[in-house]
Amino acid sequence: MEKGSLLYTGKAKNVYTTDQTGILWVEYTNQATALNGKRKEQITNKGQLNSAISDLLFKYLTQQGIVNHYVEQISPVVQLVKQVTILPIEVVVRNYAAGHFVTKYNAPEMKHLVPSVHEFYFKDDALDDPFMNDEQIMALDIATEAELVTMRSEANRVNKLLSDIFKKIGITLIDFKLEFGYTAEQQLILADELSPDNMRLIDDVTGDSLDKDVFRKNLGDVTVGYQIVLDRLQKLFTEK
Amino acid sequence: MEKGSLLYTGKAKNVYTTDQTGILWVEYTNQATALNGKRKEQITNKGQLNSAISDLLFKYLTQQGIVNHYVEQISPVVQLVKQVTILPIEVVVRNYAAGHFVTKYNAPEMKHLVPSVHEFYFKDDALDDPFMNDEQIMALDIATEAELVTMRSEANRVNKLLSDIFKKIGITLIDFKLEFGYTAEQQLILADELSPDNMRLIDDVTGDSLDKDVFRKNLGDVTVGYQIVLDRLQKLFTEK
Ligand SMILES: Nc1ncnc2c1ncn2[C@@H]1O[C@H](COP(=O)(O)OP(=O)(O)OP(=O)(O)O)[C@@H](O)[C@H]1O
Ligand SMILES: Nc1ncnc2c1ncn2[C@@H]1O[C@H](COP(=O)(O)OP(=O)(O)OP(=O)(O)O)[C@@H](O)[C@H]1O
Ligand SMILES: [Mg+2]
Ligand SMILES: [Mg+2]
Repeated sequence: MEKGSLLYTGKAKNVYTTDQTGILWVEYTNQATALNGKRKEQITNKGQLNSAISDLLFKYLTQQGIVNHYVEQISPVVQLVKQVTILPIEVVVRNYAAGHFVTKYNAPEMKHLVPSVHEFYFKDDALDDPFMNDEQIMALDIATEAELVTMRSEANRVNKLLSDIFKKIGITLIDFKLEFGYTAEQQLILADELSPDNMRLIDDVTGDSLDKDVFRKNLGDVTVGYQIVLDRLQKLFTEK
Repeated sequence: MEKGSLLYTGKAKNVYTTDQTGILWVEYTNQATALNGKRKEQITNKGQLNSAISDLLFKYLTQQGIVNHYVEQISPVVQLVKQVTILPIEVVVRNYAAGHFVTKYNAPEMKHLVPSVHEFYFKDDALDDPFMNDEQIMALDIATEAELVTMRSEANRVNKLLSDIFKKIGITLIDFKLEFGYTAEQQLILADELSPDNMRLIDDVTGDSLDKDVFRKNLGDVTVGYQIVLDRLQKLFTEK
């Protein structure tokens, strides 16, 4: 597989074409951003850790029947994925109240949300990814009702699977963000990444954040937590 | 009917008890606010105009079978209403894109929204009335699914009736905000006011705003438009 031309420089990944039609080359970088990109830092090892975690989680979801874009890891920071046309919607699933959900709505920190809450954000950097409800999204033709139904139900299946796997390694999945896209065959599937950059994870024993909150809140070296997540996932999947 | 003690000083109305249990005395004031109360002004005649418009519209909705809190007008700025326990949710209905909907989502100004869009805002001044989706509202026990269903369907009926009546007098109803509350008999009914303070209204011939946008955008004396709305409504209802 040969790396082709740069398609997209993201906040955490660079995306390239390859010599194979329909396959993209995704490089995880060490860049961390907060405040919608206004704060930027390089964090040694972050790309590698996210790539390794994402690799394990996508393989697990594939095994469990979740259709997704993932193909394979070909170097410590490079993954091959099926090219999709990303729907401009970020799907957030919340199992416990944290972050914006607490400050914006004065929700009790860590309140257990039953059933879990789904939120849709319009992926549009110029607009700062505004939060939207279903009716707004449909009225502005950003997505159809059928697409929202699919994303909600796929997000629920992913939530159940990820929550279970994290529970087994002593971690609670607080919330996470997913992206979906259309394949050439017009199937809407899970894409992007599955890493602590896009999840909140709490250690069940220590109560520590094992995710990007450590960076957002300036609590120290984020990669300590990311490494714990990776080590436990690797141990779990090797034991099996 | 005797005016009792002050219950609530709002941004546009003062609410008092009366000597009759379950009946409130609502005084429309001349105060106009924008930017969530950060900008405040007194506008001669505004209270009277809003009160008169609200009176006509509530009487019309009552005739058309919309159960609501309205009792009667007893002076140019005073209305009697049934006391309800207001649900802390503002229901916004949008027929055309305007205001925040345009700036937040980059929607084309005046885009016709079909079907019309409903939005729920959590009535909480300290939080600046944040926008919420159904799942968030239910997860935080702010309202139940049944309450959201009722408010959506009542808002739709009100929208149809108000849009029709305004159309007859050469005005387009762009969007509006409603509040609902529980009666002593636990019925969830329409409450608050129906005035150009809480609606966007456009003159079909001139394209002029006949509502609070004139104040928000500093376009001149708001009461000119309010007076046009009142005159046309009065003429329509007298002719009938
Ligand atoms: N399978 C895929 N096919 C095409 N694009 C993808 C695929 N998976 C992810 N992407 C997109 O690649 C980019 C990944 O880069 P990164 O995560 O760094 O972006 P980002 O800075 O978060 O920006 P964005 O706001 O666009 O998501 C994202 O735009 C993502 O939507
Ligand atoms: N029938 C009713 N019974 C009890 N309260 C009512 C009724 N109708 C309206 N209200 C409440 O009376 C107040 C009216 O005052 P006003 O419209 O000036 O409030 P406001 O400044 O908009 O503040 P708020 O943010 O509380 O709506 C509002 O709080 C409204 O919810
Ligand atoms: Mg990203
Ligand atoms: Mg009000």
